[in-house]
Amino acid sequence: MTSFGNAPERTGRDLFGEASAEAFSDAGVDRADVESLYYGNFMGELAEHQGHQGPLMAEAAGIRAPATRYETACASSSAGVRQAVKDIRNGEADVLLVGGAERMTNLGTAGATEALAIAADDLWEVRQGMTFPGAYALMARAYFEQFGGTREDLAEIAVKNHEHALDNEQAQYNSEISVEQVLDAPMVSEPLGLYDSCPISDGAAAAVLVSDEYATDHDVDAPVAITGTGQGGDQLALHDREHLATSPAADEAAAEAYDEAGISAADVDLAEVHDCFTIAEVLAIESLGLYETGEGVDAATRGETAAGGENPVNLSGGLKAKGHPVGATGVGQIADVVKLLRGDHVNSDAVPDADVGVAHNAGGTVASAVVHVMEVRE
Amino acid sequence: MTSFGNAPERTGRDLFGEASAEAFSDAGVDRADVESLYYGNFMGELAEHQGHQGPLMAEAAGIRAPATRYETACASSSAGVRQAVKDIRNGEADVLLVGGAERMTNLGTAGATEALAIAADDLWEVRQGMTFPGAYALMARAYFEQFGGTREDLAEIAVKNHEHALDNEQAQYNSEISVEQVLDAPMVSEPLGLYDSCPISDGAAAAVLVSDEYATDHDVDAPVAITGTGQGGDQLALHDREHLATSPAADEAAAEAYDEAGISAADVDLAEVHDCFTIAEVLAIESLGLYETGEGVDAATRGETAAGGENPVNLSGGLKAKGHPVGATGVGQIADVVKLLRGDHVNSDAVPDADVGVAHNAGGTVASAVVHVMEVRE
Repeated sequence: MTSFGNAPERTGRDLFGEASAEAFSDAGVDRADVESLYYGNFMGELAEHQGHQGPLMAEAAGIRAPATRYETACASSSAGVRQAVKDIRNGEADVLLVGGAERMTNLGTAGATEALAIAADDLWEVRQGMTFPGAYALMARAYFEQFGGTREDLAEIAVKNHEHALDNEQAQYNSEISVEQVLDAPMVSEPLGLYDSCPISDGAAAAVLVSDEYATDHDVDAPVAITGTGQGGDQLALHDREHLATSPAADEAAAEAYDEAGISAADVDLAEVHDCFTIAEVLAIESLGLYETGEGVDAATRGETAAGGENPVNLSGGLKAKGHPVGATGVGQIADVVKLLRGDHVNSDAVPDADVGVAHNAGGTVASAVVHVMEVRE
Repeated sequence: MTSFGNAPERTGRDLFGEASAEAFSDAGVDRADVESLYYGNFMGELAEHQGHQGPLMAEAAGIRAPATRYETACASSSAGVRQAVKDIRNGEADVLLVGGAERMTNLGTAGATEALAIAADDLWEVRQGMTFPGAYALMARAYFEQFGGTREDLAEIAVKNHEHALDNEQAQYNSEISVEQVLDAPMVSEPLGLYDSCPISDGAAAAVLVSDEYATDHDVDAPVAITGTGQGGDQLALHDREHLATSPAADEAAAEAYDEAGISAADVDLAEVHDCFTIAEVLAIESLGLYETGEGVDAATRGETAAGGENPVNLSGGLKAKGHPVGATGVGQIADVVKLLRGDHVNSDAVPDADVGVAHNAGGTVASAVVHVMEVRE
């Protein structure tokens, strides 16, 4: 990963060039062995007037191979990983580069918010004035009404994720915040305030995926394996759904990924989840089965999802504190899970015996969801 | 396929809803059996302020399943097909919906031209004033210089493709044109004139892909199989390449697809190729091995690529006369090849004994290329 944060002067190719170089170095894999690039980007047409980023980013990564862009809004790079996992396990490829990047801060806050809105239904949501803080505020209100919970509970999630990012040099924020600060921050869309919302970020992430055979034959140190992948879908527009306070697309993605890996929620030692807003972390940990539906809202309040708790969630700082350069987020989660599992993450001490990690990446108001299970290889 | 053409009042979802309904009806497959949608779209962010089209188009198609958007510029929907073929042959899925749509004419000619330019390198090509007619004009000039050929040769390609589309009700143009008209048409970018260029189009295409097992078990009439898929990549910007008059990305895609199918160019009975400009058809038929490098430019002049010729190319009318709604083009080619092979295309009489068809779809200045081989099932 590059550091996530405010880098309006850096282009997408600049960011992905850095992330991919680090990935090759970390993996100890020769660029020339890469058979394809599966690349995630969400809004490059608006932020950089740049489509067709596959070939551009292959070049930025120093490879000569076919390249395809995957786009499922904020879950874009995870969709590419999912396909790479399927291709590798089926013998279609031995070495694939996955990753993504997003340039956002050059648009400014209003411009980025407007661009992000293309993840919602333009005709029936965006043109009526809906933005993503508004959409997630609707979901938070529905959750409170259906299951209970308070703004304080959500604030505890933001506080926890900032705490996790304190020593994470790649995170956008290394600052402690308090529940009071969250509650007193400017309201964005009731009940979600400024500190319930992830920032707008620039950044890139990349990973080299190899087959077991390649790792063995080339003596590649690959201590973590992706053992399950799942994807779910839902109606794009909120008003078309029969639910607002749950995320069935992520339920389906998690069930499929767990089934492939042969695990259950009880086996999960740590999770990186898509907390674009604090309420989104609640939906995520319930979809992952770490909490029953309607029971996840006060998990952070009880300290259970913090470092040292029984279900550590977003030890990287999450989207909230680590940042959310959309196309990079999914592979960035996977990078953090891998580092946590192999013991070289700044927060690895919080999970010394972790064997199983999960990454949960969502697009839009969870109209798309992709879940991956990662396990320490024996 | 929907008809391709000028429909600025129709949304992408409207277009894809029509195409997918026709695909389900044609295939005789139950929507409820679809496991995923792999959807191609190129410039919806600019034309409709709409990203995250996967879930939107799943809903337009009347399915509830995960949906991922594929984007490789003008080869977008073929990239989705390629992944669907891999997933089905590996047992990852039995029934997948593929397709794509593009809304373009609502932007007007200048707006669409500017939007299309995002398929090139924004920093090093587009901002220097390059548009796609200009890029292909460079390639045509390089071809003429390196291998010979004339504007008349290119004009014969446009004339042939218009002739092929005369009775194709789904084509944008059903009008005959003459070599003189092509040569006398307004110059767009020397040596390419207006009639060397494909139109700007709205449209959608969809196909239902099923496994052999599903076809057998559900008594689905599936007379044509995709037996090979290939993809190649090249540097995005023309100036970075060592070649201008060839398309090695398509060479690679064709070689891979032929290898998978176990065929050679000599086995190909018909081809739909990416003639976004007349010169592009020349590059395509050379990449497909129907002609040696540098020898394809006068194939149309000699009548060999026309209906009744030995290598019929673009019997649908091609991008030139059938139209080029970018995200729909790849699957639209596949739809035409399937109809030609099974004998219910308006031009099937030209290829009564055809068993093997090829679809060649290119992105940008062939920085991406995807080739599929289709064969009549025994």
